[in-house]
Amino acid sequence: MSNINNVLEYIDQHQTDYLEALKELLRIPSVSTKSEHAPDVRAAGEWVKNRLTNAGFEATLYDTAKHPIVMGQKCEKPGQPTVLIYGHYDVQPPEPFELWETPPFEPTERDGNLYARGATDDKGQMLTHILALEAYLKTAGEFPINVKVILEGEEEIGSPNLIPFIEAHKDELAADYVIISDTAQLAENVPAITYGLKGIVGCEIRLTGPKRDLHSGSFGGAVPNPVHELCALIAKMHDEKGRVAIPGFYDNVLDLEAWEREMFANLPFDEQEFIRYTGVKKVYGEAGYTTWERKTARPTLEVNGIGGGYQGEGGKTIVPSTAFAKITMRLVPNQDPHRIEHLIETFVRENCPDTVYLEFEVGGHSAEAVLVDSSSDGMKAARRAIKKGFGIEPVLIREGGSIPIVSTFKKILGCDSLLLGWGLPDDNVHSPNEKFSIRDFYRGIRTSAILLDELAQ
Amino acid sequence: MSNINNVLEYIDQHQTDYLEALKELLRIPSVSTKSEHAPDVRAAGEWVKNRLTNAGFEATLYDTAKHPIVMGQKCEKPGQPTVLIYGHYDVQPPEPFELWETPPFEPTERDGNLYARGATDDKGQMLTHILALEAYLKTAGEFPINVKVILEGEEEIGSPNLIPFIEAHKDELAADYVIISDTAQLAENVPAITYGLKGIVGCEIRLTGPKRDLHSGSFGGAVPNPVHELCALIAKMHDEKGRVAIPGFYDNVLDLEAWEREMFANLPFDEQEFIRYTGVKKVYGEAGYTTWERKTARPTLEVNGIGGGYQGEGGKTIVPSTAFAKITMRLVPNQDPHRIEHLIETFVRENCPDTVYLEFEVGGHSAEAVLVDSSSDGMKAARRAIKKGFGIEPVLIREGGSIPIVSTFKKILGCDSLLLGWGLPDDNVHSPNEKFSIRDFYRGIRTSAILLDELAQ
Repeated sequence: MSNINNVLEYIDQHQTDYLEALKELLRIPSVSTKSEHAPDVRAAGEWVKNRLTNAGFEATLYDTAKHPIVMGQKCEKPGQPTVLIYGHYDVQPPEPFELWETPPFEPTERDGNLYARGATDDKGQMLTHILALEAYLKTAGEFPINVKVILEGEEEIGSPNLIPFIEAHKDELAADYVIISDTAQLAENVPAITYGLKGIVGCEIRLTGPKRDLHSGSFGGAVPNPVHELCALIAKMHDEKGRVAIPGFYDNVLDLEAWEREMFANLPFDEQEFIRYTGVKKVYGEAGYTTWERKTARPTLEVNGIGGGYQGEGGKTIVPSTAFAKITMRLVPNQDPHRIEHLIETFVRENCPDTVYLEFEVGGHSAEAVLVDSSSDGMKAARRAIKKGFGIEPVLIREGGSIPIVSTFKKILGCDSLLLGWGLPDDNVHSPNEKFSIRDFYRGIRTSAILLDELAQ
Repeated sequence: MSNINNVLEYIDQHQTDYLEALKELLRIPSVSTKSEHAPDVRAAGEWVKNRLTNAGFEATLYDTAKHPIVMGQKCEKPGQPTVLIYGHYDVQPPEPFELWETPPFEPTERDGNLYARGATDDKGQMLTHILALEAYLKTAGEFPINVKVILEGEEEIGSPNLIPFIEAHKDELAADYVIISDTAQLAENVPAITYGLKGIVGCEIRLTGPKRDLHSGSFGGAVPNPVHELCALIAKMHDEKGRVAIPGFYDNVLDLEAWEREMFANLPFDEQEFIRYTGVKKVYGEAGYTTWERKTARPTLEVNGIGGGYQGEGGKTIVPSTAFAKITMRLVPNQDPHRIEHLIETFVRENCPDTVYLEFEVGGHSAEAVLVDSSSDGMKAARRAIKKGFGIEPVLIREGGSIPIVSTFKKILGCDSLLLGWGLPDDNVHSPNEKFSIRDFYRGIRTSAILLDELAQ
């Protein structure tokens, strides 16, 4: 009754074609940040739309104020679940070119990997699902469940047009689960399902002492130095246990459950390798939690940048006029981003001395944390699919990063996302020499096809 | 018997010529920092040498590894004191040009001032002494005391060749007093003798956490953030009373004497005007001292610049790899610069957490504080000279800035400097629209001539 074996056989027979297809897509320099590449982003959108329609899947390219969105659906199985596949066909800028071993838009095979900008983020991972749909339609002519897709060309610029588009098409996009492959495995041959993501809020603080830089000899010691005051303020933001010292910050934090802590303790996470990879002298963070827990499941506050006064070569003997810091906080369930913004603003205003002028601005980033029910039918199906597709039981992990679109889907469509990452942590996402394991590309296509089967009731 | 009345009459008759001479010198763009202006610096040196020799004062231009030095002497009065007149004929770069109301090297009269780069710093002030010597020689044919001059073209680049030159010519340069006009009056019609200067030492601190910027979502909270640690370190450098909290920092500080505090309290220093001029919300500094005392006579520590992580527009969610701060400390007598360097290095090394890599570098600046005996015969003569030349009793002040050459003269030649400033605090030294009061230019020439007379025993 199930067609899955035929589908998998078809997939295995078409590996070479699939790799060629991926290379074709990777050759399109669809850099969404640069207006001169707008035609390329559009071309990449057309390419995926055409691939879907040629396979018999109705898809349409919708224009937006910037880059187009591809949406389509094939919902012929009433009573069966509906999945919404999300991916993005835009890529990060490739610069600096000189650090690429082979050109970013000339996909090159090396040591079992395909190197190109977008190889893993997200063209390669996105394509696994499109090709799985294609294989299903070419062999069985239909899907075992209802399938919708939404693919965008603005992920790397913050999806400005996707959110209103989802709002406007919320009925057409209704689904039980969103499927997203834009994360990574824990390590080679350690496939992972991400069931939690941190949220984020940000702010910028600027303190001003004198109205212009002053001679530090003639004025130093007699006027407030905004760098000193900013440092004092930042120093108060953590306590001696590495905890965030903004009052109320931890109030609503959903603590890790015992099963999660046990599960994380058993992950093949090598702290010495982590130290080697990051180059830090020592790991550091909130007392009472492991490095992995701090990294993926505890809220944090980081100064992303600080500046003030003279930063050039040598010295310049001034009392700087202004100093600023850019700060982001990563949130966990159930911290409310707006409440946290309010808490840090209150903290800064209360702790800023009255000798300097304060400007406080809430940052552009704001997203809630996400925690997916890891015992849902969809999660169970995903675990089975990966076990069959990769031949390995996946681990369940949470991620320190934020994928704002996941909370958007939850908020607007009311559905959880299944975050199935085929990438690897060292894929050089957003860096030169981005790559994607060719074996994992194939395993991803197989797993995606199996997942459709496993989700069918 | 005294020739001073003839000299002063001569000076008054030649005001127009003197202003033309100053304009001529100001037209030479003797910017010492820029190698393309090396011929101009030399030309300015030649100009002053020629002015001296044409007046009958033997002077020689000495080549150095960079810009030349002019040295000369006329010592025909055994038993009389010897003065060494110091000045510099190089100037700061004029940029930004667009902020100048009239071109920096086209001296322009406006509202009783002469506007040009170098007008007050130091061509105009230096020239008062050269013209006083000229007037003396043209009228009396001789000086009442022994006179030496040393004029350099590298003051604005830190006098790299002057110190070895003084060492090499220390016998020829031997004097009772050095006369320097490179400071300012307290205010218009409040001429000042500066009897104290702060010293200076500097350092740069760099902390490194991860070996490259890391994603603040995936790594934040699990690795040390060097900005946090740098801020904590800087926050510890002052206590809640605004005192420098480096242990031992105040150990040898020569405190203000009662007569100084009383004298400073009576200076026409307007704190509201100071707040308006600097643009600060409030004055701030070490508890127990007035703004004027903090500014001019108490040791200070200022972060001149700080930087780390992302400082561009918008945000970038990273844990920065490194953060640095540039710090200078202004010293008072009897703080030893080397000891203070050692104290801050010890403080930084002891307070830097072991989670980050520390680089500590002592800065290029290093100078001892200077305190001139304000009751010496030279000082008394200077006070009398100013009272006669300006018609106003001068105030005695200390300055927060450092003039390293003053401690060099003290160290190598063993003589105090008489710091007689003809400038004004708003002369825009090192800024666009530098100016010098034409009236004070004339009063300076008169005062310089009178001083030679007053110093004669």
